[in-house]
Amino acid sequence: MSVFNIDKEPRITLVGAGPGDPELITLKGANALKTADVVLYDALVNEGVLDYANPEAIKVYVGKRSGEHSFGQDAINKLMVDYALNYGHVVRLKGGDPFVFGRGYEELDFAAGYSIPVSVIPGLSSSISVPGLQQIPVTHRGLSESFWVVTGTTSSGKISNDLYEAARSKATVVVLMGLGKLKEIVKLFQNEGKGLLPVAAIQSGSTENEKFAVGVVDTIVEVVLEKEMKAPALLIFGEVVSLHPSFLPIRDFYQALKEEI
Amino acid sequence: MSVFNIDKEPRITLVGAGPGDPELITLKGANALKTADVVLYDALVNEGVLDYANPEAIKVYVGKRSGEHSFGQDAINKLMVDYALNYGHVVRLKGGDPFVFGRGYEELDFAAGYSIPVSVIPGLSSSISVPGLQQIPVTHRGLSESFWVVTGTTSSGKISNDLYEAARSKATVVVLMGLGKLKEIVKLFQNEGKGLLPVAAIQSGSTENEKFAVGVVDTIVEVVLEKEMKAPALLIFGEVVSLHPSFLPIRDFYQALKEEI
Repeated sequence: MSVFNIDKEPRITLVGAGPGDPELITLKGANALKTADVVLYDALVNEGVLDYANPEAIKVYVGKRSGEHSFGQDAINKLMVDYALNYGHVVRLKGGDPFVFGRGYEELDFAAGYSIPVSVIPGLSSSISVPGLQQIPVTHRGLSESFWVVTGTTSSGKISNDLYEAARSKATVVVLMGLGKLKEIVKLFQNEGKGLLPVAAIQSGSTENEKFAVGVVDTIVEVVLEKEMKAPALLIFGEVVSLHPSFLPIRDFYQALKEEI
Repeated sequence: MSVFNIDKEPRITLVGAGPGDPELITLKGANALKTADVVLYDALVNEGVLDYANPEAIKVYVGKRSGEHSFGQDAINKLMVDYALNYGHVVRLKGGDPFVFGRGYEELDFAAGYSIPVSVIPGLSSSISVPGLQQIPVTHRGLSESFWVVTGTTSSGKISNDLYEAARSKATVVVLMGLGKLKEIVKLFQNEGKGLLPVAAIQSGSTENEKFAVGVVDTIVEVVLEKEMKAPALLIFGEVVSLHPSFLPIRDFYQALKEEI
């Protein structure tokens, strides 16, 4: 980063790469990548997305995967500004949408402190698109008039207080980064008497590693263990999950059980 | 629709066009349009998106705009299946994401009844992307650990019951199709003692007709009237709105007011 490029005005574009499938980036996002001098990308970004970038662009991986060296948010902020000042157009490429638990605003704010213009190109949030690709609608007439997206892991490491209220609500509840706390989360729904509420878990949605599990609140922990699912994964709690074809045998089972009693 | 095309297998692709800007469709969505024999599109779809379609494709407008003839959902379902059986690949193009208050599942279900394969290509939901383009993050550390998306207008014409709970919650609350019921919605937040909660209203987000208004719960009705805003518009209730630069003078005003008292 020693060559100060006086021909290029520094600027930053925050781009959402979508849930994984490289074709699920927007045209605008792909076009931004074409004009990038530098691309800073996260762990959740499928590397196939980098193929849209200018081949001359410097590509820097700043994500963290378990066990590897990783950058803190401060280091990413500084890197981003440094590259913009020295090379021109930085595309900051983030999985999903930059503003859905993506800390995008922190980066935007940091850049503003250096008077570097920032623009935002939203991406498909996995919260809506990953259920959608499984043909589970987050809203559906008669079943759900709203959906509530909550993080399973807050900055303090605890589950979010909002999850207590979400478990009580009639909204479709989508939990991101919640697989590691699945038992705790399930308990919240059980405490509300929702043991038979349909639930789906989806790992690595829209990619070749996608795994899908369906059950009810009382059984989902077991199903997820059986399928050996791991992060990144999301959870969907709500009657809309019952629309998925793989829920049919589960419904039939509970129906039969009910009739026996 | 008299020519039965025996060369083409009927199939349907449900595609989300995104919030308005034609470049905010996904690459996958644009590619589906290229191979479409027929495109059925809604009022909320920017017609610029149709330029990505195969020029030979039949393009049918099935949306409703006030005062115009409009198709009911049943008619759209039948049209979609009819075109697929007679012409092959139908792209059903919907504003935003097909499953966010888009009745996409109803169409998918209807097509399944005719054994026509349906695939889904999600789109950017305005609920996340329109605030995002205004650099308002739906989540932000220290301000919001979740966001709740609710419809302002349910099938019964009333505001959703979920809105009562949403007004009580700590989530960022995004209301779609709520502008016509703004006074009623505002009252829910006032009843929770949230008269000073920041609110933004955004009309026609991401298009050249975009209008933006910011205020607090107690003032937003007046601001929206002043700016002569109309549907389609969305509302964002939450502390995250205070991050928008145009909120600064409002914060200063209430700060000064507080100090006087």
